[in-house]
Amino acid sequence: MKERALIRDIRSGRQAIGGLIRGIGDDCAVFQAPAGDRVLLMTSDTLVDGVHFNRDFHPAESLGRKCVSVNLSDIAAMGALPCYALLCLSLPNDLPRKWLDQWRHGFDTQLDAFSCALIGGDTTVGRDLVVTVTIVGAAPEGDILYRNRAQKNDLVCVSGPLGSAAAGLSLLQKGVREQAGGGDKKFNRLFKAHLDPEPLVRLGCFLGQSGLAHAMQDISDGLATDLAHICTESGVGAVIEEQFLPCDPQLPVAADQLGVNRLDWMLRGGEDYQLLAAVAPEQIDSLNRALEENGFSPLIVIGRLTEEEGVFLHLSSGRREEISFQGYEHSSGD
Amino acid sequence: MKERALIRDIRSGRQAIGGLIRGIGDDCAVFQAPAGDRVLLMTSDTLVDGVHFNRDFHPAESLGRKCVSVNLSDIAAMGALPCYALLCLSLPNDLPRKWLDQWRHGFDTQLDAFSCALIGGDTTVGRDLVVTVTIVGAAPEGDILYRNRAQKNDLVCVSGPLGSAAAGLSLLQKGVREQAGGGDKKFNRLFKAHLDPEPLVRLGCFLGQSGLAHAMQDISDGLATDLAHICTESGVGAVIEEQFLPCDPQLPVAADQLGVNRLDWMLRGGEDYQLLAAVAPEQIDSLNRALEENGFSPLIVIGRLTEEEGVFLHLSSGRREEISFQGYEHSSGD
Repeated sequence: MKERALIRDIRSGRQAIGGLIRGIGDDCAVFQAPAGDRVLLMTSDTLVDGVHFNRDFHPAESLGRKCVSVNLSDIAAMGALPCYALLCLSLPNDLPRKWLDQWRHGFDTQLDAFSCALIGGDTTVGRDLVVTVTIVGAAPEGDILYRNRAQKNDLVCVSGPLGSAAAGLSLLQKGVREQAGGGDKKFNRLFKAHLDPEPLVRLGCFLGQSGLAHAMQDISDGLATDLAHICTESGVGAVIEEQFLPCDPQLPVAADQLGVNRLDWMLRGGEDYQLLAAVAPEQIDSLNRALEENGFSPLIVIGRLTEEEGVFLHLSSGRREEISFQGYEHSSGD
Repeated sequence: MKERALIRDIRSGRQAIGGLIRGIGDDCAVFQAPAGDRVLLMTSDTLVDGVHFNRDFHPAESLGRKCVSVNLSDIAAMGALPCYALLCLSLPNDLPRKWLDQWRHGFDTQLDAFSCALIGGDTTVGRDLVVTVTIVGAAPEGDILYRNRAQKNDLVCVSGPLGSAAAGLSLLQKGVREQAGGGDKKFNRLFKAHLDPEPLVRLGCFLGQSGLAHAMQDISDGLATDLAHICTESGVGAVIEEQFLPCDPQLPVAADQLGVNRLDWMLRGGEDYQLLAAVAPEQIDSLNRALEENGFSPLIVIGRLTEEEGVFLHLSSGRREEISFQGYEHSSGD
């Protein structure tokens, strides 16, 4: 555990990779390679208007932050620190300047919050608003957590409540809105989970540095799909227990109001951006103790990896059903 | 000059940067940092259907190659070697599978041709076909050619004919097509310049390694704009001579056929992907000798950098006119 060093790194993320030699204003961005045993990580995600977001209810500034956060989450999910970003924007001619300014403010403040510098990109016109963000990160090679190193009998752990983003999106799509002026906070956390999710960069780095997890990824396509990714890549299966699946107390209220099965959101809803980790049973106590000592919530154990292939849900009723790859799909990337 | 070493590098481009640890199949791609004094370069470009290309006359395979080439050209323009690529695709539901397969074949073969590995990206649906490619390259820090190091009195040099891509595009937009079966080759090089431009990676590396150029960039937005970039960034001006501007012999024929002023294509036409370099007058002879000895065409001197700001064209008629930033604009990125 090197918590003090970690905090220092996150405050000045760019030091993790080496200095920027040339940013925007040339054919390419140029930067120094990370020193020592650090390796580089890269991830790109595309968000398309009308597919990944709806401008009718997605405030521009939140969306700007989210375009950064979904990529930061991929870096966090491997236990690394983000350093640099590239932004490619395809903009419709009729996009209001004010909307774009607010979007950009959200984008910039979220990069700043994680000490990540914008070093390049491209802006063009197009019929759809399409945003592609690329993030570069770095980490000591030994800290990186892959999908394919999970082991039979590992505990399946998640970092927090499931299904909040899917519930928030469903509410918004049905016209339910947060009351202005702060009166009605009935679903505020569900709305935020969809509109402005928090990338768990500090937690991801801590788990990477701890050396106490075997595999990790973020939950972007829904637990059923993302756990199936870890299982397929690692050659194992999983059984998860309905009774252990965590949800926000606002979620059952929303499920009742919309007449939806809450389990559907929790298993198949995308964009939770919680971390999903495989941890050896004999390590979970010391890991959770270390997490709590360092100001994090403990991981929540929801099941176990097995020899038998496939991801299964053990229902509270005693029934067992296969749920492999039943997650949310609007994209098929990483 | 380290020509043998250069050729070896290009044959096995990835060695220039360090090994790939994890490609597609995880939250991020992971790769080793380049060794020694090498630094990293990154560039991203977005191409939008109906803005940057027209599927009515752009064969899918050529377009796949071009989506790689426009990014390779940015790496080449700084004297570096490309190593890794990320591909983000937004695909309309009605895009024919056969078209996509051909596009992908072109994309893959062009990456292979430059020893560049696809290591990540994202695929999503969208109304428009939008392609964003990110390329990572590497080079010894001392080899990199920036835009902002040009000096007063430097010669303005280009690597080859200007305006071919703009002429090819104009012909295609007017319905002129190449004859199938290879009969009529009247405009074949102009068509190719638009449909399937050649990124000058070997030449760019050679110029970087030579140490004989002060500044460089590729001509993607037209000579008038790209030369203005070098001038603005370097705090100089330029005068170029109409009589020295090179063009393909097919270009005047096309200009006559369409009733267009050829100079307009040559100065303001985008997407030439020739290299534009600033070279000290006392270095040009030894540089051009070295180029010829190594199988390259010599650079063509078209003008000179001046103290006075602005980019000026000295016409054959004796008249002088300012042309700064008059280039082609469908994008405003790097």
